[in-house]
Amino acid sequence: MAVYPKGADGQYYFPTMPDVAGIALGTTNAGIKQTLRDDIVLFQMAEGSTCAAVFTQNAFCAAPVHVAKANLVHQPRWLLINSGNANAGTGKQGMDDALASCAGVADVVKAQANQVLPFSTGVIGQPLPVQKIISALPAAYANLRLSNWDKAAKAIMTTDTFPKGVSEVITVDGEAITINGISKGAGMIQPNMATMLGFIATDATISQPLLQHCLSAAVEQSFNRITVDGDTSTNDACVVMASGCSRVPEIVADTPALQIFANALVRVCKQLAEAIVRDGEGATKLIRIQVEQALSDEEAVRVGKTIAHSPLVKTAFFASDPNWGRILAAVGRAGVENMVLEDVQIFLDDVCIVNNGQRAGDYTEEAGQAVMDREEITITVKLGRGTASQEVLTCDFSYDYVRINAEYRT
Amino acid sequence: MAVYPKGADGQYYFPTMPDVAGIALGTTNAGIKQTLRDDIVLFQMAEGSTCAAVFTQNAFCAAPVHVAKANLVHQPRWLLINSGNANAGTGKQGMDDALASCAGVADVVKAQANQVLPFSTGVIGQPLPVQKIISALPAAYANLRLSNWDKAAKAIMTTDTFPKGVSEVITVDGEAITINGISKGAGMIQPNMATMLGFIATDATISQPLLQHCLSAAVEQSFNRITVDGDTSTNDACVVMASGCSRVPEIVADTPALQIFANALVRVCKQLAEAIVRDGEGATKLIRIQVEQALSDEEAVRVGKTIAHSPLVKTAFFASDPNWGRILAAVGRAGVENMVLEDVQIFLDDVCIVNNGQRAGDYTEEAGQAVMDREEITITVKLGRGTASQEVLTCDFSYDYVRINAEYRT
Repeated sequence: MAVYPKGADGQYYFPTMPDVAGIALGTTNAGIKQTLRDDIVLFQMAEGSTCAAVFTQNAFCAAPVHVAKANLVHQPRWLLINSGNANAGTGKQGMDDALASCAGVADVVKAQANQVLPFSTGVIGQPLPVQKIISALPAAYANLRLSNWDKAAKAIMTTDTFPKGVSEVITVDGEAITINGISKGAGMIQPNMATMLGFIATDATISQPLLQHCLSAAVEQSFNRITVDGDTSTNDACVVMASGCSRVPEIVADTPALQIFANALVRVCKQLAEAIVRDGEGATKLIRIQVEQALSDEEAVRVGKTIAHSPLVKTAFFASDPNWGRILAAVGRAGVENMVLEDVQIFLDDVCIVNNGQRAGDYTEEAGQAVMDREEITITVKLGRGTASQEVLTCDFSYDYVRINAEYRT
Repeated sequence: MAVYPKGADGQYYFPTMPDVAGIALGTTNAGIKQTLRDDIVLFQMAEGSTCAAVFTQNAFCAAPVHVAKANLVHQPRWLLINSGNANAGTGKQGMDDALASCAGVADVVKAQANQVLPFSTGVIGQPLPVQKIISALPAAYANLRLSNWDKAAKAIMTTDTFPKGVSEVITVDGEAITINGISKGAGMIQPNMATMLGFIATDATISQPLLQHCLSAAVEQSFNRITVDGDTSTNDACVVMASGCSRVPEIVADTPALQIFANALVRVCKQLAEAIVRDGEGATKLIRIQVEQALSDEEAVRVGKTIAHSPLVKTAFFASDPNWGRILAAVGRAGVENMVLEDVQIFLDDVCIVNNGQRAGDYTEEAGQAVMDREEITITVKLGRGTASQEVLTCDFSYDYVRINAEYRT
């Protein structure tokens, strides 16, 4: 997985993002958060665009998720995103408000309301200030530009500390295809602020079913492989829009072009997901958990997530403590049948810490400590069972995690 | 579930515990922890005693767990417990050491080594100081008394802040049966210190299979319903010894006597389990999660544990923040099929906070805040699906949890 870009000053910077032909973005401040920051984003897709999406598995998904799911079949042309309010846990009024905001967009842009996909992120359980949103729509519409990616990335932020964007240009049949994406935490990170959101746009030409297939596969390898605290929100969603405005012919099944496109989409999603973990609440370290020699991908992910969700492992990483007993115990309770302790090896970066069911013979605390002092650490677990391997990303668990989540509403 | 006793000074106190005829305890200081505190307990069971046990499900269980499991079939007469060292992650040497400590007991007490069940709790991955333990066994043997429950409860402590004991005397056919139990955290609380342990003794007469049946059922309703951080250790175990020394005739299947005994065992286990949660690392609040109207017990427990494991819920309770959105989101991601948001009700103690898929109409922040300010809080979730109900116990997630677990080895 690529490393998210960091400037010489140690800060993450928003990359230069080219335009995506056929996809325009407009932002404005609707006053939802009562700050000066923009909190509304309008995406416009060129006629003939295709659009695919994946949504939270949370049984109590928010009103806008219900509406977006339903409208996805009506060849959407518009996305409306607001931050500051999740419109979740809002009952029938929440549904009415989500529909009203779509109708508001339709009025302003002269479209059908069911061609609008709504997305909300922010506090759960507060009524959506739908009038504020509707009043702001003409300004968002007037601001539509191909170049507004940085503004959009900022406008969808809630407690994120930096805007997150990734862009990749690939060459297919000698012509360029651009893929841009923006994301925000938190999803599993802070479901109360409700939501991991990802918005990806490309000028590729690709049918909706094939685009959906590519997105689902990419999300499985990226957003579904990150975890900060194991909580999934009521509003999580990831959307990809394909405008069909590039010069590359339609991408169809079983072609090298599809493979190139699908791989690029995976890379973009992985970087967007990684950026979310890097911005995990209170996170001081990025932890890559590489599970190898599993019987299946499912088994590898299961072990990886058990480690990633362990508060004991996460606090040990915060303390830079090479506490291999906690990692071993987490592997042991992952629910893998007939696992043989003696076959398992565990590494911190390149240092073997567990071998033959015990601390590795040549392991030294100094070697383990040297790894733990790093800001990015890979835990590799070799299960000695098969050939499947999968990676899960997480971060450490710090005082600030407790502070941020304990003090959020106060 | 009964409330664990607290003195007028706000401290938990160790209850007065009667003797259990036929069960003697001896403690001593073997110097494992290099403190002045006793760290060895020897239990002696009268001839003809029966003994049942349940052990950790962690695939990487510690050496003493392997030995205790194997010896359980040999009509055990002795338990040897050490704190300060878990003898886990110690490979073949760990097995040799566990067997050597059993042989050491056999030498001193003139028994068979396979009649000894060994238990260890403490740091993972350090060699067991087996010579220190063997050298201390004569003193532990010489100290055997029926009355040593308080000393034993203290000797098995690791980072526990108070010794945990429960006693109940029941009357069956006009005669008394005593059930005593002691426990220690941490199990799910601090698996690195490795271990939730529970030791229960009774003077009842009951066959081993029936005793095992009663214990398994009791553990399922008690120790398996508590969680502090979701981590289960390599050393967790719970043992019940029945000496057969009471005047009550043998307790046999399908009798009122069995029901009375089994119910008392459940109560004792629940109180021992509750004491562990109350001593959860950094815990400031006890949270009872009562899930009602579920389709099955399994479903109720699943929802309860999903709430109990949510760091977002736990930090909100630490902050006394009535953040019902986090509870709702946790219920929603518990993986219950076809759950209907509108049917779910959530209460904080007697205050309804969620109804009809949204914040309850008559809910006020003041009412929620009043509940959250309490030290013991019950979250009741009514799923509106069936008639099953189950309770899960947990505690909040504080700065001290991070501090204790981040600083443990340093």
